[in-house]
Amino acid sequence: MCLPLLRRQLLNMSYKVLLCTAVVLAAAVSADKPNIVVLFADDLGFGDLAVYGHPTSTTPNLDKMAKEGLVFTQFYSASPVCSPSRVALLTGRYQTRSGIWPGVFGAASTGGIPHNETTSAEVLKQAGYATAIVGKWHLGVGKNQTYLPTNHGFDYYMGIPYSHDMCPCLICFYPNQACFDKCRTGDTPCPIFENTRIIKQPADFTTLTATYTNAATSFIQKNAAGKTPFYLYLAYQHTHHPQFASKEFRNSSIRGTFGDSLSELDWSVGEVFKTLESSGVADNTFVFFTSDNGPSLTRQIRGGNQGLLKCGKGTTYEGGMREPAIAWMPGKVTPGRTMELAATVDVFVTISKMGGGKIPTDRPIDGVDMAPILFNNEKSNRDFYYYYPFGPNPDDGVFATRYKQYKAHFYTKGGLAGKPYRDEDCWGSTPKTKHDPPLLFDLVTDPSERHPLSGKVYEEIIKQITDMTMKFNKEMTWHESEIHGSNSSAMPCCKPGCSPFPTCCACGQEIQQHLFSPALELL
Amino acid sequence: MCLPLLRRQLLNMSYKVLLCTAVVLAAAVSADKPNIVVLFADDLGFGDLAVYGHPTSTTPNLDKMAKEGLVFTQFYSASPVCSPSRVALLTGRYQTRSGIWPGVFGAASTGGIPHNETTSAEVLKQAGYATAIVGKWHLGVGKNQTYLPTNHGFDYYMGIPYSHDMCPCLICFYPNQACFDKCRTGDTPCPIFENTRIIKQPADFTTLTATYTNAATSFIQKNAAGKTPFYLYLAYQHTHHPQFASKEFRNSSIRGTFGDSLSELDWSVGEVFKTLESSGVADNTFVFFTSDNGPSLTRQIRGGNQGLLKCGKGTTYEGGMREPAIAWMPGKVTPGRTMELAATVDVFVTISKMGGGKIPTDRPIDGVDMAPILFNNEKSNRDFYYYYPFGPNPDDGVFATRYKQYKAHFYTKGGLAGKPYRDEDCWGSTPKTKHDPPLLFDLVTDPSERHPLSGKVYEEIIKQITDMTMKFNKEMTWHESEIHGSNSSAMPCCKPGCSPFPTCCACGQEIQQHLFSPALELL
Repeated sequence: MCLPLLRRQLLNMSYKVLLCTAVVLAAAVSADKPNIVVLFADDLGFGDLAVYGHPTSTTPNLDKMAKEGLVFTQFYSASPVCSPSRVALLTGRYQTRSGIWPGVFGAASTGGIPHNETTSAEVLKQAGYATAIVGKWHLGVGKNQTYLPTNHGFDYYMGIPYSHDMCPCLICFYPNQACFDKCRTGDTPCPIFENTRIIKQPADFTTLTATYTNAATSFIQKNAAGKTPFYLYLAYQHTHHPQFASKEFRNSSIRGTFGDSLSELDWSVGEVFKTLESSGVADNTFVFFTSDNGPSLTRQIRGGNQGLLKCGKGTTYEGGMREPAIAWMPGKVTPGRTMELAATVDVFVTISKMGGGKIPTDRPIDGVDMAPILFNNEKSNRDFYYYYPFGPNPDDGVFATRYKQYKAHFYTKGGLAGKPYRDEDCWGSTPKTKHDPPLLFDLVTDPSERHPLSGKVYEEIIKQITDMTMKFNKEMTWHESEIHGSNSSAMPCCKPGCSPFPTCCACGQEIQQHLFSPALELL
Repeated sequence: MCLPLLRRQLLNMSYKVLLCTAVVLAAAVSADKPNIVVLFADDLGFGDLAVYGHPTSTTPNLDKMAKEGLVFTQFYSASPVCSPSRVALLTGRYQTRSGIWPGVFGAASTGGIPHNETTSAEVLKQAGYATAIVGKWHLGVGKNQTYLPTNHGFDYYMGIPYSHDMCPCLICFYPNQACFDKCRTGDTPCPIFENTRIIKQPADFTTLTATYTNAATSFIQKNAAGKTPFYLYLAYQHTHHPQFASKEFRNSSIRGTFGDSLSELDWSVGEVFKTLESSGVADNTFVFFTSDNGPSLTRQIRGGNQGLLKCGKGTTYEGGMREPAIAWMPGKVTPGRTMELAATVDVFVTISKMGGGKIPTDRPIDGVDMAPILFNNEKSNRDFYYYYPFGPNPDDGVFATRYKQYKAHFYTKGGLAGKPYRDEDCWGSTPKTKHDPPLLFDLVTDPSERHPLSGKVYEEIIKQITDMTMKFNKEMTWHESEIHGSNSSAMPCCKPGCSPFPTCCACGQEIQQHLFSPALELL
């Protein structure tokens, strides 16, 4: 009797009582719960999208998302590098609390995200969501794949579990065009996991994004059809170096390999939106797009662009940690542009609350709810943010603190830029420098961090920021580092014990030995 | 009999014969001819508008114009400084041809735009347009006001005829807040001309933009009512240093004085659009917005931002000459974003043709018609552009040449940036450097000009660009400099011969002597 009533139109109506079967009740819950999709780009800079001012990028689908959604201009990742940024996104806590410091996981890492951390997947799963991650995990693999996503709240995982340059890079472009880097030839070929099993090794970059997209859209379709609320975390390998693209996207842009990579990412975003639409769930889905950290300036024209910000990946200057970010939910998220402060740690809180999940109360949560910004065009729940560097340590604490429009640098350090980038502060060779008093900038009038503020008039604000920073540093609990452990036997291999290691780790296709050829030089 | 037929609706219908009075014929012409409005900002950088990626600028009216119009990402001014940029906009010819080199006119300049130059106002006036310029002219005043706009095709002029920092700067903000600069205290107070007569001296900055806007909207209303096609060139003093704003716009932005200045500019743009709408001519009006040159980096947070481009005002790097540019014409200009190459010299050709005017054939015209880009989403008529520096000379010729995606720098020189700007190439102290072979960049993949290209593969393109540049330099006719002549008696004064000069030049209001006080320091 009740089943025919389960159509969206009816579920969207308000009703008070439905005395029906458990099936209907579950479906009613699903109607209350919006679906959630987090799209995460890799090494995409603040200035890389057209909507953020890049003159030659072409991203029609992200443009459309931006036009219909809310574009953030002051949104931060938790780290200027990958793994720590991702753990903060998933747990709502700074990376120090989970031991994802210093630096990032490699293929041979033995550690991973601790099991007592609670991810958004765990929260939402408990709230009745189907959960999946497709793409780059980068929070450890571990013995018996213990750190993989399916042991952290995700029902389903498919993807390369770390950066795709942490493997020997072979073919990047259809049919046989080599990558612009050999990447890490001593590591096992890039594995694609499905849940905890390697289904292909090495990954074929020329079909990788299609594979990811197919997994993502299938997950959406399945859950939309089953009326199950879903949480999809789609973490692209694009636009990290070395860029790659399928046949359709090679030379599809005028911006070289970076542009091709970005075009394929954009295509995939479009496919996700199309699927939400065709599955009838677009009106009840929250989509959030952002990136893990700033552009890798050492990669030159293949490394993205930070727009008007200072420096890039690897630094605590704005270019390292301020990201493009777009929120979308038709009829709910106010379209436009916001200058309110927000961060990846806030995504955890926001989507957990949105899905009716329980946020852990037995531990500090660094994120705040973005709902006021998203749904009511109101002030942010945060007026501060802390910047941990690439390789933080408990003695130094945070490198910088933002409070309202001000940012105080207590330490600065170069990042990954080479000398062609003319600002020496960004160079890899620029050592850590302590600033006492801290270097103070007004990011609202000086977003490019060019003109440090000094003088009596700023003494009070400097004291205030220094005090709050000292308090924050003092109260921080540093979980033992999960990054330090490393062992080549921990490298994922679909044929454990095979020889000659690591090239023997080949499944799902024959590995083409001749492709271990020298990489092309950067043109 | 025929007069009632003069309503827009009927005139927009196609008809072949109208045997009527001359009045009707004139009106029929006006319906065919779109009205033309050119909005010109001052020292506004490529990165200063939200639509070009600035995180804290707020310009709702320009945002709306951009949303409904076509946003250019590769649009160039003719010079990294003011006067030469303006003459090229008005004549469609590089500034060298009219002698507007080296540098800019001052209050005491005796020269100006030669009378044998043909401005867009002259072309359009001859084609039946009412023509007006409101705002900053900066192409000379001269003896008996011979160089003022009404002697160059404009029916009406109202404005300060040069930069508002070429006068003693007094009050910038309501009611009595001093400017952040004393500007040129030896010059006469800023005069506001109406046609060739000074109607106020000194100008009141706190009402200046309202005065300009009122003149502009009155001109629109009058001609819309009279069914006369019109050409309005509205050249703002915003956002040039020292910024100023009326009561309504002081502290109206979060971006300091620059933001307030930009907000007032944006308000004025909004008033123009409102007036086009309320006068019933919006559907038949072409509006073009751009800026004269890049941001003045020496002014620090009061100097604008060049976004992801290199350097700013005063240099031939992209930041000096690539500008925000937006075209708008409902139902005609394809909304969106274009990566096609265009320039201020093209505005002359485009609007002259649009208005059915005759482009002079007795002289070289450097501009090309932008119609393919504007109306048909087609390729640009230009694939090259030449960059003259701040102070060009015939021996050096152009400093750089763009051809397709490539830009070759034959010379580089610092601009107006101080040391806080970390790229030494932009500093005022960086001398002219000759590059042989030229420094080559690919602006499509490397818009920030960070990674010069070299090697055999680029030899051919370097030769091609060098050859075309040498040919261009050889063929250029340098009109004798109009800039060199200077005489303090040439400074505009509403009371010629008065004493004590120049402060005695006060009309339209009592000058407040006590306001010649020291300027505030930059905060």
